[in-house]
Amino acid sequence: MILRLAIIGFGNVGREFARMLLAKREWLLRDRGLDIEVLAIATKTKGSLLSKRALDLERVLHHLETHGTLTGFGPENVDLPVIKLIEECDADMMVELTTLDVGSGQPALSHIIAALDRGMDVITANKGPVAWAYKEILNVARSRGAHFRFEGTVMDGTPVFNLVEKTLPGCEIIGIRGILNSTSNFVLDMMARGKSMDEALEEAQRRGFTEADPSLDIDGWDASAKIVALANVLMDAQTNPKKVARKGIREIQPRDIEEAGRKNRKIKLVASASVSGDEVQLKVEPMLIGPEDPFWSVDGTSSAVTLRTDLMGDLTIIEGSPTVAQTAYAVFSDMIQIVNSIRAGTL
Amino acid sequence: MILRLAIIGFGNVGREFARMLLAKREWLLRDRGLDIEVLAIATKTKGSLLSKRALDLERVLHHLETHGTLTGFGPENVDLPVIKLIEECDADMMVELTTLDVGSGQPALSHIIAALDRGMDVITANKGPVAWAYKEILNVARSRGAHFRFEGTVMDGTPVFNLVEKTLPGCEIIGIRGILNSTSNFVLDMMARGKSMDEALEEAQRRGFTEADPSLDIDGWDASAKIVALANVLMDAQTNPKKVARKGIREIQPRDIEEAGRKNRKIKLVASASVSGDEVQLKVEPMLIGPEDPFWSVDGTSSAVTLRTDLMGDLTIIEGSPTVAQTAYAVFSDMIQIVNSIRAGTL
Repeated sequence: MILRLAIIGFGNVGREFARMLLAKREWLLRDRGLDIEVLAIATKTKGSLLSKRALDLERVLHHLETHGTLTGFGPENVDLPVIKLIEECDADMMVELTTLDVGSGQPALSHIIAALDRGMDVITANKGPVAWAYKEILNVARSRGAHFRFEGTVMDGTPVFNLVEKTLPGCEIIGIRGILNSTSNFVLDMMARGKSMDEALEEAQRRGFTEADPSLDIDGWDASAKIVALANVLMDAQTNPKKVARKGIREIQPRDIEEAGRKNRKIKLVASASVSGDEVQLKVEPMLIGPEDPFWSVDGTSSAVTLRTDLMGDLTIIEGSPTVAQTAYAVFSDMIQIVNSIRAGTL
Repeated sequence: MILRLAIIGFGNVGREFARMLLAKREWLLRDRGLDIEVLAIATKTKGSLLSKRALDLERVLHHLETHGTLTGFGPENVDLPVIKLIEECDADMMVELTTLDVGSGQPALSHIIAALDRGMDVITANKGPVAWAYKEILNVARSRGAHFRFEGTVMDGTPVFNLVEKTLPGCEIIGIRGILNSTSNFVLDMMARGKSMDEALEEAQRRGFTEADPSLDIDGWDASAKIVALANVLMDAQTNPKKVARKGIREIQPRDIEEAGRKNRKIKLVASASVSGDEVQLKVEPMLIGPEDPFWSVDGTSSAVTLRTDLMGDLTIIEGSPTVAQTAYAVFSDMIQIVNSIRAGTL
């Protein structure tokens, strides 16, 4: 089976995904009978590529590294708006990895709808579309017989959506609780080690894992979008980030952390979803965490989620200090899941 | 689709599984198009049932509760050796839940081979067969086109085997580390709270989660069988419990725990598998755990496993204070996985 991809957005995650395709090429061919061809790559400021035949990914990565742009790559180099590129390419599947406006889910949402409309399967690591327009996207996907997957929207490639869908059949999710925003968790950890919030934030930005606008992390917007994505998908909440009772960590003072420490507590930004009557209530707020809590050891850039289920009690999954490879893996595993679905004839 | 079951072993787990079938009957019919019929139930000392038509599970459970035995249930009540019962019943699937001899994997292993030989799909929550004879069982299953699943052998229904198989495609497991034995973890926790080992063990037995012979817990045999099961399945280790460098908690003294506590450490029985050259090395031993470790909060009867992977880094999954329902759920989820495989035409 030949699977032809368009990669929209080719920053750190996109490039790492391309490297993963190269590294696992043998496994994909031998174990899965899968030959992956990338036919299109779009970037915002570094040019785009469009081809009828498989692009040489090694050469693409090398050219980008050497020249800092895709311009001059060869006849595949085109100057097209992204939507046009999606419409003109022959790919079976679009991988959406553009930089996101969390407040609207754009431009990712437009790209996703355009690709699904053409019957392409879609993978995204962008939380915005799932937080703002999950039902809408699902309806378009279903009407076109296309697949839509998004494991990377929460906790990178850590199976959360797939965990529930693939390994907890028959379980109802009755509550969710998570440390979902790396930046604020890292900042609180650094503050507990004596840094100021500004110093900690600078360090986080230097390491490259903050949102472009760090207030999205600090004020709890990123965590809100993620808990909404989880609740929309796993609890059918049909809600959006504006409905989250949101409190970030901006007002946390070093003395608050010191005082918590004296009581053997840590302050962590906890996002939660719980059922109250017919509604799903969503919160993001700083909370005191004790050593008996599975979140106690979730420091630095690690993240965690606890799923409360009817049949299996509480399950916690922790992702230890991820790098960009873990987000790229989310896309990789979604790609395999879609191929499995295609082969099984399911949506 | 009608799925006909034989349940071999009908203690706490088997009865809870039967209750789960009743509770989720609507979901099974509506969401999965699955009509489950139980045609046979075998117990060691309480009689057995064999029927051509679906047994009334509610009546079975009520009869057992009222009379403490299946004798007198009606014409379905039979007096047959288990192997004979397996051979004579018309079930599509056998659920194996007998009491286990960890040292040999029997009698579960014989039951499993007999059922697979007849082409029945098999689910077990017994770790012995997977620890002692995984390849052998798999060969029989494959030659008969039958399915064999065993999620409940490690951490009850917490997805561990399924987590890797269903949600981490392409990931290689390069190391495993776990708190896998509830009894020793509970005993160490109680000792840290000032109880003696004997008092703690009595309490564990009173609560009913120890092995029939508690030395299997205390001396690390149960944890050894479980790490072997994990390594055989997830790392192709082809090993057995005798090859584990095994040290239990029998020699741990209250003063050891106190001393650890003074250094802000806990003692936990940790099972591990790691790659060394071409071999998988297996260990079970008491270790000092610090507060930065994801196992720090895994107290009482909780358990946890960390999977070290090539593509996804370290993933930890924690099961919080399980009851018998979580083991029953392992069987329930295996049943759904097998039905999915049958429908997809895969083994």
